[in-house]
Amino acid sequence: MSIRIFVTGGTFDKEYNELTGELFFKETHLPEMLKLSRSSLDVTVRTLMMIDSLHMTNEDRELIAHQCMNATEEKIIITHGTDTMTETAAVLAEKIKDKTIVLTGAMIPYKFGSSDGFFNLGSALAFVQILPQGVYVAMNGRYFHWNNVRKNRQTGQFEPTLP
Amino acid sequence: MSIRIFVTGGTFDKEYNELTGELFFKETHLPEMLKLSRSSLDVTVRTLMMIDSLHMTNEDRELIAHQCMNATEEKIIITHGTDTMTETAAVLAEKIKDKTIVLTGAMIPYKFGSSDGFFNLGSALAFVQILPQGVYVAMNGRYFHWNNVRKNRQTGQFEPTLP
Amino acid sequence: MSIRIFVTGGTFDKEYNELTGELFFKETHLPEMLKLSRSSLDVTVRTLMMIDSLHMTNEDRELIAHQCMNATEEKIIITHGTDTMTETAAVLAEKIKDKTIVLTGAMIPYKFGSSDGFFNLGSALAFVQILPQGVYVAMNGRYFHWNNVRKNRQTGQFEPTLP
Amino acid sequence: MSIRIFVTGGTFDKEYNELTGELFFKETHLPEMLKLSRSSLDVTVRTLMMIDSLHMTNEDRELIAHQCMNATEEKIIITHGTDTMTETAAVLAEKIKDKTIVLTGAMIPYKFGSSDGFFNLGSALAFVQILPQGVYVAMNGRYFHWNNVRKNRQTGQFEPTLP
Repeated sequence: MSIRIFVTGGTFDKEYNELTGELFFKETHLPEMLKLSRSSLDVTVRTLMMIDSLHMTNEDRELIAHQCMNATEEKIIITHGTDTMTETAAVLAEKIKDKTIVLTGAMIPYKFGSSDGFFNLGSALAFVQILPQGVYVAMNGRYFHWNNVRKNRQTGQFEPTLP
Repeated sequence: MSIRIFVTGGTFDKEYNELTGELFFKETHLPEMLKLSRSSLDVTVRTLMMIDSLHMTNEDRELIAHQCMNATEEKIIITHGTDTMTETAAVLAEKIKDKTIVLTGAMIPYKFGSSDGFFNLGSALAFVQILPQGVYVAMNGRYFHWNNVRKNRQTGQFEPTLP
Repeated sequence: MSIRIFVTGGTFDKEYNELTGELFFKETHLPEMLKLSRSSLDVTVRTLMMIDSLHMTNEDRELIAHQCMNATEEKIIITHGTDTMTETAAVLAEKIKDKTIVLTGAMIPYKFGSSDGFFNLGSALAFVQILPQGVYVAMNGRYFHWNNVRKNRQTGQFEPTLP
Repeated sequence: MSIRIFVTGGTFDKEYNELTGELFFKETHLPEMLKLSRSSLDVTVRTLMMIDSLHMTNEDRELIAHQCMNATEEKIIITHGTDTMTETAAVLAEKIKDKTIVLTGAMIPYKFGSSDGFFNLGSALAFVQILPQGVYVAMNGRYFHWNNVRKNRQTGQFEPTLP
């Protein structure tokens, strides 16, 4: 079973610019993380963009959907900023029905020591192997169907929208 | 859905004794790791023992099986040394048929920076939520049925025994 | 020999706010760092303020000078943002002649894994023990007299102003 | 001012072998540490040996002394296991009178996250710049003359032998 990881940026891959004191993107840490995980899965990583998800446009989402459709893999993980992760999930769900797509991200940049990113990558890789076709968000140790999830801005946690 | 984590020790929880230069067990890092993961799952952690799995006896395995049977949860994760993880899995599979049990561990102690443990915890928590009843090993990003897995001593990786 | 550490904030002690994605101050990491260092020095830590040094006012600098004068210790370290570290050093040098005062900081927050802060603390503690009375900046493994140092904004490194 | 660092191994540079569960030496982390420190000092690193200091022989100490004498630098740091650091210091002090030599090490391997090594490197580099000619041990934030220091095996800390 082959798995494709598409990188789009988000807190996951942010770094600290020591000259300006601001956060920025350099390159993805996914290959380093996969090495550290000692994963023996057949995974291919491709960076589609490196942006804050608050800056993601409809065009960007079209590009992601296009890449998912064209990928030869049926199992796809997308690393994504948490702020608009559910919006991208909705766009993908409308267009792609025959693949298992799992979006994940992080609340703390991977390079900042206390990140949840490495844990989330482990859970996303597990979920994508087993879940049936559909579009999902994997955060906080759980998976959510694309049409039953929101990010709670107060707590920073993802939760179901339906009771 | 409630999940129980039973801690038995293993490389996962080893620490460095700076006075003797040897590795030892103090207490489990599971609660710290769960906090870092920002998991919103309903998880209860209990330490059963803190031992190197090379020192695990039949009696120890009976105790683990007993605790799994008596747990009110149907979903159980066991953190375990990698050297005899598959032996414990076989003992559990013989005795327990109506629960989903996932054994996981780490090649590098969690406290040593470059550990795979946090990733493995993420994948074990994901697998235990979805896999049907049975006993599994979750390592290297994958899950294995208890009766089709071995640790390759040369590579340090888990792999299927059957072709 | 007693050493006093006055904390004023700076990049040293910044943390990442996972809800806003911004950097902020919570509390100083100096006690944790001293414990990790296994230092057996007689050190007392006191937080005077927790601010970005770009926001430091003349009043703040008066307060720091006042605290340095009133301290019973003759050896004082001040953790400080790097952007205006040399300005504070100049204010202190004008007012205090009979103590050894070493200002230090970090280019990367201590909590972000790749920080220079722990190294800088080690060098500042060493310098303050041996250098004669005066006001110094300790960064990049070196010490500089307060009147012969500037931060190079292009490289982020401290360097002598005189050839 | 040029500084030479001679690497001899010790806990400082130990790593965890995930196949055997034992500690071993691969290569020194000094270059990585110097980069992280953002040091602008003129430092040259050379590995002389990579051994546990309990295994260091008289011949090894002769070799270290020989290298110190032949080095063009007058300022020398030696990274060394803590168990016999004071013995090597005594050998060097007998043979070399016209250089400043600082021995340092770590109680926890640099790669294990909670190491004191990065702090110790910062203090050793500071001490070597200022201390007069002689042989010193820099540990626990302090410096000790070679003939007034011992490692307390109970506490793991270095302390003066004289009251």
